[in-house]
Amino acid sequence: MRVIGTVAELQALADRERAAGAKIALVPTMGALHAGHLSLVDVARKRADRVWVSIFVNPTQFDSADDLSRYPRTREQDLQCCRDAGVDVVFAPECDEMVGSAGQTWIEAGEPAQPLCGRSRPGHFRAVATIVVKLLLAAKPHLAVFGEKDYQQLAVIRSVVRDLGFDVEIVGAPTVREADGLALSSRNVQLHPEARRQAVALVRALDAAEGALASGEFDAARLLQRATAEIEKAPLARIDYVELRDAISLGPVAEKLVNPALLALAVYFDSPERDAGRAVRLIDNRVLDPRRAVSSR
Amino acid sequence: MRVIGTVAELQALADRERAAGAKIALVPTMGALHAGHLSLVDVARKRADRVWVSIFVNPTQFDSADDLSRYPRTREQDLQCCRDAGVDVVFAPECDEMVGSAGQTWIEAGEPAQPLCGRSRPGHFRAVATIVVKLLLAAKPHLAVFGEKDYQQLAVIRSVVRDLGFDVEIVGAPTVREADGLALSSRNVQLHPEARRQAVALVRALDAAEGALASGEFDAARLLQRATAEIEKAPLARIDYVELRDAISLGPVAEKLVNPALLALAVYFDSPERDAGRAVRLIDNRVLDPRRAVSSR
Repeated sequence: MRVIGTVAELQALADRERAAGAKIALVPTMGALHAGHLSLVDVARKRADRVWVSIFVNPTQFDSADDLSRYPRTREQDLQCCRDAGVDVVFAPECDEMVGSAGQTWIEAGEPAQPLCGRSRPGHFRAVATIVVKLLLAAKPHLAVFGEKDYQQLAVIRSVVRDLGFDVEIVGAPTVREADGLALSSRNVQLHPEARRQAVALVRALDAAEGALASGEFDAARLLQRATAEIEKAPLARIDYVELRDAISLGPVAEKLVNPALLALAVYFDSPERDAGRAVRLIDNRVLDPRRAVSSR
Repeated sequence: MRVIGTVAELQALADRERAAGAKIALVPTMGALHAGHLSLVDVARKRADRVWVSIFVNPTQFDSADDLSRYPRTREQDLQCCRDAGVDVVFAPECDEMVGSAGQTWIEAGEPAQPLCGRSRPGHFRAVATIVVKLLLAAKPHLAVFGEKDYQQLAVIRSVVRDLGFDVEIVGAPTVREADGLALSSRNVQLHPEARRQAVALVRALDAAEGALASGEFDAARLLQRATAEIEKAPLARIDYVELRDAISLGPVAEKLVNPALLALAVYFDSPERDAGRAVRLIDNRVLDPRRAVSSR
C-alpha cells in the first residue's frame, strides 16, 4: 500500500493508472475509520481495479475550533486498517496541502445544500463541496463512494458533480449500524456511556415513523410526531432538527406523503453532567417511500 | 477537424488522447473568432500535440439579455477559421449541454474577482469561473490558453485553478492589436464607425501612463490622471473605470508605485446618436513595472 501526501504525486499516479486502463475508486474519509468506512471500501473494490482512500480532516467544514480539535485522529490505526482491507493507495495530505493560504475559491452548491444541516451549520456544505472537488481533482477517480449516513452530503456532492459535469460516478453505500441500531460514526466514541445507551433513540425514531407509514399514516406532521416522541424519550437528547424532505431535491414535502421522502434527524446528546460544551451531535436518516407502503399493505 | 457537441463525447476523446500520451491544449472562446483568438491557437500549438477550441457563448456571464442577444455569433466562419488554423477539435455545445436546468452550483472565486469588472458587473466572474471549470472538466486538457486582454479573467482563472488544485497549466497570451493600437475584441464590430475611430483613446491612455512612468512619474493618482485625460479626449467615451491594481493580487496599489501594477480600463463608447442602449463597453490593460522604469532611466 502506498501512502501519498501531495496532490501532484497523486495526480501523476492517477494519470499512469488511467493510461494503463485501470479503473480507480476513491473513498474520501476524515479518518477515525470504522466498519462503516470499510463497507465503502468493499463497495469500491467491487466496482474498480484500484481502491484509493483519502484521509483528511477538513478544518473548514467544522463549526468551531473546539469541535475540530475534539475530532478523533487515529492515523496509525487508520493506515493499518487500510492495509488490512487491501487498499491500494492512501492519500493523507497535511493540512497546508489542501487548504493553503490561497484557498479563497469556494464551491457553492445549490438547493440540496440549503435545508437541514445547511441551516444548522452555515458554511458546512460549501466547505464539504470544496474539499470534495479538490479530492476529485487530485485523485481523478472513475468513481467515488460516500456513505448514505451523510445523506445530505451525498445529495450535495451528486448535485455538484452533475452541475459541473464532472466525469466521475458518485456511488452511495448503505449505513452500517451497531447491534442496537446506532449508525456507525466517528463521533460515537465521543459519547458519554449513558448518552451512548440513549442514542439508540435515533434509530427507534426512524423505525417508529417507518412503522407508522407502513400502517397507513401518510400525514407528514404525524410521522414527524412519531419520530420526535421516540427521541424525547431519551433525557440526554436535544433535537437540532427532525424533518421530512423530498428524497431527491431535499425540497419541502406535501402534507400527505406522495413521493419518497427523507426523514432526517440531527440530535445533540449531552453528558449526564449537562456540560453543553461536550454535547455530541449525531445524525441519521431513512428514506420513507409511501408508494412502497401502499403496495405492501 | 472534429466538431463535438456533448461533454460525454469530449471526455471520452480526452481519455483516449491522454492514454495515448498526447498533450491537449484547450483554447476557450465565445466564438466570433478574430486574429486574437488565432494567436491563442498558435500558442497552444507550440505547447501541445492537440489543439482544441471551445466555442460557447455563456449566457450567465452577460449583464443583460440585450447584451447577450447582441453578442456576435458567426458559427460557420468560426469553424472555417479553426479548420484553416489546423485546430484538431472544436467543442461547440448547445446551451442546454452547458447550463442545464440544474446549473445551481457556482464557483465563487476569491480576491481577484472582487475589483474592476467584478464591481462593475456583479456575478460576471462567478459565471466565468463556473463555465471555465466546466470546460476544463469536459476537455481534461493539460493546458488552457487565455488572452491577456481579459487580464482580470486570466487572474481569476489562475486563482481558481490554483486554489482547487486543478491539474492544468493556465497560459496567458499577449493582446493582439489593430494597426492603430485598438485591442482586438469580438465587441469591436458593434462600434459605430465614429466610435471605432475614437476607441484608439484606450491604447493612447495606456501609452500615456507608461510614458509618464518611464519619465519618472511613480505617483499612482497622477498616472491615472494621464490615462483619464487621454480617454476624455474622445467625446463618445464614458469611463466605467480607470484603475491601478497590484498586478498579481489585483489588490490596491501604494500611493507611489513600487511593484508591478495593472493599469485597467473599461470604457463605454456611445454612438453619435447617444443611444445609450447601443453603447459598447471595451476593456484594455497594461502592466506598468516601476522597477523596469527605474532601471531603464
